[in-house]
Amino acid sequence: MIHYHHPKEPFRLELGGVLPELSIAYHTYGTLNAARDNAVWVCHALTANSDVADWWPHTVEAGCFLDPAHHFVICANILGSHYGTTGPLTPDPRTGQPLYADFPRLTIRDMARAHALLADALGIRKIHTLVGSSVGGFQALEWAAADPARFEHLILIATDAKASPWTIAIDETQRMAIKTDATYGEPRADAAAAGLATARAIGMLTYRGSDGYNRTQQDPPGQPITVPHRACTYQTHQGEKLCRRYNAYSYVTILDAFDTHDIGRDRGGTDAALATLTMPAVVIGITSDIIFTPREMVALASRLPNARYIEIDSAMGHDGFLVEHDQLNQILNDCFKD
Amino acid sequence: MIHYHHPKEPFRLELGGVLPELSIAYHTYGTLNAARDNAVWVCHALTANSDVADWWPHTVEAGCFLDPAHHFVICANILGSHYGTTGPLTPDPRTGQPLYADFPRLTIRDMARAHALLADALGIRKIHTLVGSSVGGFQALEWAAADPARFEHLILIATDAKASPWTIAIDETQRMAIKTDATYGEPRADAAAAGLATARAIGMLTYRGSDGYNRTQQDPPGQPITVPHRACTYQTHQGEKLCRRYNAYSYVTILDAFDTHDIGRDRGGTDAALATLTMPAVVIGITSDIIFTPREMVALASRLPNARYIEIDSAMGHDGFLVEHDQLNQILNDCFKD
Repeated sequence: MIHYHHPKEPFRLELGGVLPELSIAYHTYGTLNAARDNAVWVCHALTANSDVADWWPHTVEAGCFLDPAHHFVICANILGSHYGTTGPLTPDPRTGQPLYADFPRLTIRDMARAHALLADALGIRKIHTLVGSSVGGFQALEWAAADPARFEHLILIATDAKASPWTIAIDETQRMAIKTDATYGEPRADAAAAGLATARAIGMLTYRGSDGYNRTQQDPPGQPITVPHRACTYQTHQGEKLCRRYNAYSYVTILDAFDTHDIGRDRGGTDAALATLTMPAVVIGITSDIIFTPREMVALASRLPNARYIEIDSAMGHDGFLVEHDQLNQILNDCFKD
Repeated sequence: MIHYHHPKEPFRLELGGVLPELSIAYHTYGTLNAARDNAVWVCHALTANSDVADWWPHTVEAGCFLDPAHHFVICANILGSHYGTTGPLTPDPRTGQPLYADFPRLTIRDMARAHALLADALGIRKIHTLVGSSVGGFQALEWAAADPARFEHLILIATDAKASPWTIAIDETQRMAIKTDATYGEPRADAAAAGLATARAIGMLTYRGSDGYNRTQQDPPGQPITVPHRACTYQTHQGEKLCRRYNAYSYVTILDAFDTHDIGRDRGGTDAALATLTMPAVVIGITSDIIFTPREMVALASRLPNARYIEIDSAMGHDGFLVEHDQLNQILNDCFKD
């Protein structure tokens, strides 16, 4: 079930802007126990929402690693998104109109601070396990670096402590696609839909990679040369599908935040910040991930004081974190047993 | 030096269109010997031209594998391009106006047939070595499959015998970017420049990959958060740079041709077509290439009757074929000695 938290204070942003008020949407599954020590906090990625059970199939179930019978699973929609948390489509209280392209620039640090506001409001001082995959991992690492004593365990899947030039280049290319659409900037939720569709198609390339496409998008044998390739209709379909549920302004706002992700900012550098995360951590890489490569995930684990590295074997690229739930459940159920 | 060949016959296209007349631009280096058996034909990739010495540094030089002292090196600008060969910007003889977006759809087979027309016109019946990298390799394989007896050796670098769903998805995403630009379709050479810039930026992602960006586009240490990331300015710069020398109509025309590449079409399938290529062949993969992965290159070599596979060690991804000239010269000079 979706819940909302409305902190009354203005929310000052790292890069200087201010949001006069905040809405934070979140889902919970299971019950916070009397000791208040069974919370498992999940941070979501780019276009997802707070309903983990929806976007991460077969993880929030009995016997799975996010088991509501044992854990109080919680996920908050990130700042800048539009699934209930304040973002570019939220009416600004000063004018009653959304800010659209004028929404202030955010950082991952702002997103993590909004998570902390919610945790405080719910009286969850200690968090048993903080889980983040992809850009969810950016938030998890950032929040952990801001307040290491709060977290007893850390699970980091296909992510990094600092945005790499490669991930920034992917973001920039998606922004180029969106801003190529001449309707970007128009004050309506469906502005730059064609650009957003292209951005999503770019994203899909990086999420799936060579193996992902070649396994799932082969044309039927003997298909005539004039019939559109399945790989083409897949790209346009994925683009259109996102446009039905998302908007270009939230997308750009969140991409911008990704680019400046660095848990080492004002903390003596990335390595120094990672060194403060002494809680037990599990770092999971995916064999075919071309965004956060296994080599980079190994390097991340090696820079954390108390982490072990485990690899998921998958042909689905970065999307492996969403589809390989059997492997994830096996790996993480074992971890929770420790 | 650039030369032109103007076949007088209408050029009928595989997909049913017809070009009333043809211009084929080409460069040559060195001298065709009296036996006419020292021609080395190079097929170029997407946005390149016939001047191999320009786009493939340190390959057309004394001591390099395309040594003009020994070989008659020749490269023709591909059909659909705009470096002298007929393409969307070429005035149509019927109207005097370029066809732009109405230029007929091409295939790699059409491109290879234009190469054959030129070779015939130059009296080059036997070609000592046919070289193709990336989409140049598409043409090389297609031409070799159409006329295997013509070629004594084959050099295939980072390419394939059939477009994979992955490469088609990359093409489609670039087309989406171009067609998101509302000026696409306007009858001028610089239409859809913003879309073309985005398409190029998408291409760069796939040419360089994670290692390529992370090695070359790191921000200087301590760069303030408000300064644009080097990876961002690199993407926009690459896009703008292409727009100064290329056009969206040629780009889309050539992408469309890539998608239907399959040397097995009307030849009993890809494997059967590869089996007819009994000449000695060298297949070269690049360790970090995410477009044509080393595994796929090994598979290509294994399906050719008389090929050996050699790998270039490079962090530069697919672009390794352009930058790793030292390794290429070493590998291919050895091959030419055989």
